[in-house]
Amino acid sequence: MAFPHPLSGLSVEETNIAREVVLASLPNTVVDFRTTSLQEPAKADLIKFLDLEHAGKLTADSPRPPRLARVHYDAVDGSKVPKYMESVVDVEKKERVEHELVSTESHPSLTVHEFETFVEICNASPLFQARIKDLKLPEGFEIVVEPWPYGGLDKADENRRYFQGLIFAVDAKTKNPDSNFYPFPLPIIPIMDWVKRTIISIEELATGGNGDPLSGKTHAAGVLDHCHAAEYVPELLPGGTRTDLRELNVVQPNGPSFSVTDDNLIEWQKWRFRVTFNPREGAVLHDICYDGRSILYRLGISEMTVPYADPRPPFHRKQAFDFGDGGIGNCTNNLELGCDCLGVIKYFDGVIVGPDGYGHKTPNVICLHEQDNGLNWKHTNWRTGRAVASRRRELVVQFIITLANYEYIFNYKFDQAAGITVEARATGIVSVVNIDEGKKASWGNVVSPGALAQNHQHIFCVRIDPAIDGHANTVIQQESLPLLMDSRTNPKGNFYEVRDTTITTSVGLDAAPQNNRCFKIQNLDKINPISGKPIGYKIVPPPTQKLLAHPNSIQAKRALFAQHHMWITKYKENELYAGGRYTLQSTIEKDGVHDAAARNDDVLQEDIVVWNVFGLTHNPRIEDWPVMPVEIIQMNITPADFFAGNPALDVPSSRNLSSKLTTGRSLNGTNGATTTTNGDANGTNGDNCCS
Amino acid sequence: MAFPHPLSGLSVEETNIAREVVLASLPNTVVDFRTTSLQEPAKADLIKFLDLEHAGKLTADSPRPPRLARVHYDAVDGSKVPKYMESVVDVEKKERVEHELVSTESHPSLTVHEFETFVEICNASPLFQARIKDLKLPEGFEIVVEPWPYGGLDKADENRRYFQGLIFAVDAKTKNPDSNFYPFPLPIIPIMDWVKRTIISIEELATGGNGDPLSGKTHAAGVLDHCHAAEYVPELLPGGTRTDLRELNVVQPNGPSFSVTDDNLIEWQKWRFRVTFNPREGAVLHDICYDGRSILYRLGISEMTVPYADPRPPFHRKQAFDFGDGGIGNCTNNLELGCDCLGVIKYFDGVIVGPDGYGHKTPNVICLHEQDNGLNWKHTNWRTGRAVASRRRELVVQFIITLANYEYIFNYKFDQAAGITVEARATGIVSVVNIDEGKKASWGNVVSPGALAQNHQHIFCVRIDPAIDGHANTVIQQESLPLLMDSRTNPKGNFYEVRDTTITTSVGLDAAPQNNRCFKIQNLDKINPISGKPIGYKIVPPPTQKLLAHPNSIQAKRALFAQHHMWITKYKENELYAGGRYTLQSTIEKDGVHDAAARNDDVLQEDIVVWNVFGLTHNPRIEDWPVMPVEIIQMNITPADFFAGNPALDVPSSRNLSSKLTTGRSLNGTNGATTTTNGDANGTNGDNCCS
Repeated sequence: MAFPHPLSGLSVEETNIAREVVLASLPNTVVDFRTTSLQEPAKADLIKFLDLEHAGKLTADSPRPPRLARVHYDAVDGSKVPKYMESVVDVEKKERVEHELVSTESHPSLTVHEFETFVEICNASPLFQARIKDLKLPEGFEIVVEPWPYGGLDKADENRRYFQGLIFAVDAKTKNPDSNFYPFPLPIIPIMDWVKRTIISIEELATGGNGDPLSGKTHAAGVLDHCHAAEYVPELLPGGTRTDLRELNVVQPNGPSFSVTDDNLIEWQKWRFRVTFNPREGAVLHDICYDGRSILYRLGISEMTVPYADPRPPFHRKQAFDFGDGGIGNCTNNLELGCDCLGVIKYFDGVIVGPDGYGHKTPNVICLHEQDNGLNWKHTNWRTGRAVASRRRELVVQFIITLANYEYIFNYKFDQAAGITVEARATGIVSVVNIDEGKKASWGNVVSPGALAQNHQHIFCVRIDPAIDGHANTVIQQESLPLLMDSRTNPKGNFYEVRDTTITTSVGLDAAPQNNRCFKIQNLDKINPISGKPIGYKIVPPPTQKLLAHPNSIQAKRALFAQHHMWITKYKENELYAGGRYTLQSTIEKDGVHDAAARNDDVLQEDIVVWNVFGLTHNPRIEDWPVMPVEIIQMNITPADFFAGNPALDVPSSRNLSSKLTTGRSLNGTNGATTTTNGDANGTNGDNCCS
Repeated sequence: MAFPHPLSGLSVEETNIAREVVLASLPNTVVDFRTTSLQEPAKADLIKFLDLEHAGKLTADSPRPPRLARVHYDAVDGSKVPKYMESVVDVEKKERVEHELVSTESHPSLTVHEFETFVEICNASPLFQARIKDLKLPEGFEIVVEPWPYGGLDKADENRRYFQGLIFAVDAKTKNPDSNFYPFPLPIIPIMDWVKRTIISIEELATGGNGDPLSGKTHAAGVLDHCHAAEYVPELLPGGTRTDLRELNVVQPNGPSFSVTDDNLIEWQKWRFRVTFNPREGAVLHDICYDGRSILYRLGISEMTVPYADPRPPFHRKQAFDFGDGGIGNCTNNLELGCDCLGVIKYFDGVIVGPDGYGHKTPNVICLHEQDNGLNWKHTNWRTGRAVASRRRELVVQFIITLANYEYIFNYKFDQAAGITVEARATGIVSVVNIDEGKKASWGNVVSPGALAQNHQHIFCVRIDPAIDGHANTVIQQESLPLLMDSRTNPKGNFYEVRDTTITTSVGLDAAPQNNRCFKIQNLDKINPISGKPIGYKIVPPPTQKLLAHPNSIQAKRALFAQHHMWITKYKENELYAGGRYTLQSTIEKDGVHDAAARNDDVLQEDIVVWNVFGLTHNPRIEDWPVMPVEIIQMNITPADFFAGNPALDVPSSRNLSSKLTTGRSLNGTNGATTTTNGDANGTNGDNCCS
């Protein structure tokens, strides 16, 4: 096509056009840009376009939705008080089509340059420097300021834009800029007023444990004296790295099985979808089809919240909304060949803006690769000894975000049995605060001398906009339930009931593994000819613990989406964010999925959205220090009577001829590991896996 | 060592010595052997030996436990009624050291030759042949007899040894011995009396659906007329196999990172353990240590039960105990290079016996390989842009069993963060019965015309014999629980309680994900110097649905182990089987984990055993037909304050130089997939993953 696809991200050029239009609309005003990204087409318009595309009837004359950019920015006029604005710009017509002066009740998401400003202000603050001086750092230690979102505003607070900083010290004697500073937490939190650009207060953190006061300056003089280094960069590891791990390579001699065309159209093993990158959600998938049938209209990570459970104020303000508070765009890792995945890899770039509004490429924010995940199906006929086995190949769309101390790895996995898995891996460095020597605290674990890792939760929300063979869909809650013995219907007591409940009104529901509860997204107008049941996909919500904070707490009020595992709502334009449009310094979730469900919309064979909430209650282990091994959590979207049989049945059961045998000799000696013979030498044919 | 290790499986020679000793002990008796396998040493003896071995103090003169073989067999004397016996033979002293005539209330596990006999008896039975004749099979179809364990004896039954057969027809016109017969189920079940070697009855199966009679001969004349073929062997697939899946090879140029020495001693990445194979449990792991510290004494799959939920008698007798009913030994797949795993693979053989008692090797019953499982940990210092990332390598011990229509793939996975994952994958062909055309049944799903896949459950039990830095261990139940807001202790409502409950008496307990319930196996005598908490490992029991059958049903009584997710019992010699020693035709679980827990033993810092029960409620989907894609379920055994930090911190964060870039061009053309450049050409160094 001559034109960009409606689901192609904004180019640098389009981004710069949006900039010009916004600047032209605001004469005599200083504009600080925050984000500029694709305003996705209205669903009705896009569906028209996609229907033509699916039907192969797209021409240069086909109607296309307008190319729109959504621009977030601060406008600073004579008053010197920044006004937060959002505009939608038609980058083809070069005109502003929507404009909003956002209520001062709402705070725009954070940007990296705000973080940088905060660090500068701290370092320049006499108040801050004086307090640091009091702390009498050990010789050779320097200060590190870790900017954090301010968290929920206490009612007492004015509605100002604040920043808070966790303060650490780093041992400059290592002469390594990546020496780990987290083992050296300092018991103060400076607060900055963004408008005044000044440190308005420095909060003192209690450093006690069980039975000690919850607040105030309680620490001993040498607050870092009992802290120990804990490095993770290889060159600083006392023992170095292990030397007995041998190379494992994923080799695809004929290239990958996927193709990427038309900028962002991915095709693989009957799957077809598009991927976009935006600064709030990271990688988002669109128009997901299998074998020419539509399954999902849109799939993305909508929000997450990370509330900390340390009861000592101000730690109730340690609650990040890592998507809504901002930063995903700038915090998304630029992935590297040979580090973040193996095999043959396709990378996708993103476009982000600086304060000046000019767009620039951020490379490799998304990677695409294939992986093997063991056997997918196998059967042996014991009469003939004939085994037929087929492996499980997966296509993985991955992006990784770094938020100060912490990392999240998100994978969308597609398999050959027409299933989709959304996986989150939590890693990075657990957040610690200073604790007096020898003390314990019931709200965390001492993972390093003087460093208390606070208990916390990670609550994710995946937004699933289904299109199960069309956009009119219905959610069925299905449970398997025990029955009484009954001489007529259950004479031997082995029968159980599979009970379907049709969801007709928007609602929040919970997991119930004890009932084998699952949710089927069905198209009631399409009946499977074999089973006679509506076609559908099913979700078994991971039955993870919900938010623990008290319902009246600010943490809970800000994250109403975390009240349920599953939300079923009616589609509404631009309703993408489970925790609400503005989460930063919020006092309550507004226009989030809780409000959406509360509309009590009719969701029976309507255009619906399904939201799945799951999480981790993370009471840190010593083994999580200093960088934690991944905690992996997954949710699956699986066909349930959507097809006529196992979609992976036609996957070849070929024998992999590059596999080798080893006798398993000792590892002694430089290469004493194995004698290897290849598949052929093993007397096997290359065709099938059959005895 | 000159002698076999006490944990080495019996050799063919040792197996044959056991045979001679048993035969010599029974003059004038016909002996039909069932199984002969290693009788593992008494724990006290083995611990003495292992302590010496761990300390490097083992010499040729060190005391060794006796080499014992446990032999199961039928003895047929003049009475012609087989007596079931078990003997333990010292194969070095060549003498019988234990002997037991097993009560006639107990039925020995099945053997393949019994299955073969059953099929012969069916085919020779005039009663059976006459009934088949009535069924008027379509032209060219032949009978297939699928032997099944008889299931639970109804009180009415005499205590005889029975066999039941599911009967199918196969289209011989395909001229392919592996043409799939399961789509053609016949509505009869012949019953054989094992002693009389005769078909004593043929049960009629109802073929109706909802609202139809639960029993009796209800099918139409042409019972297969509405059934359709459903092939899975590649050469019979109507559309053939897909051609767009490109080769993905796992290449280990320097060989694997593991070593296998001393027959069955596996060492990998600080892990050290032994693997044995036995005909009841398959692969069992012993003496699992990490970095010289003991973690588990023994790990195995203890039992599983698969109850079917079709309310129509005799389907309450469709309940397999796939380990206890027997057959694992003979049903374990002989794995094949390039089919069951990728990379460099070490295979282990087993030894099994035929009716004559002679031992023979069964090759490749266990495979050992390494695999990559994505990122294991990553952190980026946003100030410097320095990323350090380390991949997750896993060592996998795999075995696969085929039980008539169904397959289970079992993986024990070891990771570099000192975690162990036990994974079960369910695959194979779902069990179907004939259903009249156009009908539906609430106890199953019509997956193929005329073939109803019955709802069922798979309940597994993993037996974990811990040795957390010693054999005196304690289980702590830990929950994370909400708290009221309280001005003194929880002023902001964000605090939650982490509550520990010490388990002091043997008991069965359940999963409770809503409380983030986990179970820590701790050594209360060893305190982690950093956290000040006892060292331990934790298990978060998969919160899967428990057995649905009514407590008064025979299905439930036979599987009392399925009443709870976690059982904590005191170690008792030879107490290995959750469902009891004899499950075949059992009417109630006897000497299983339920009885073990009922002893109310003291389990506070004692030699304990932890049993984890999890399962799948499987209401079949169309997509499970004709061979189902794997349903994957995992349980994890993870360090919790056992170490001084992340055990994987010293894993090199090396860049993989064999990974390639692709531009992701179209797949059109023979090899148009990609242009690739290697890591070096990408301007990266081979040392580290750092920006």
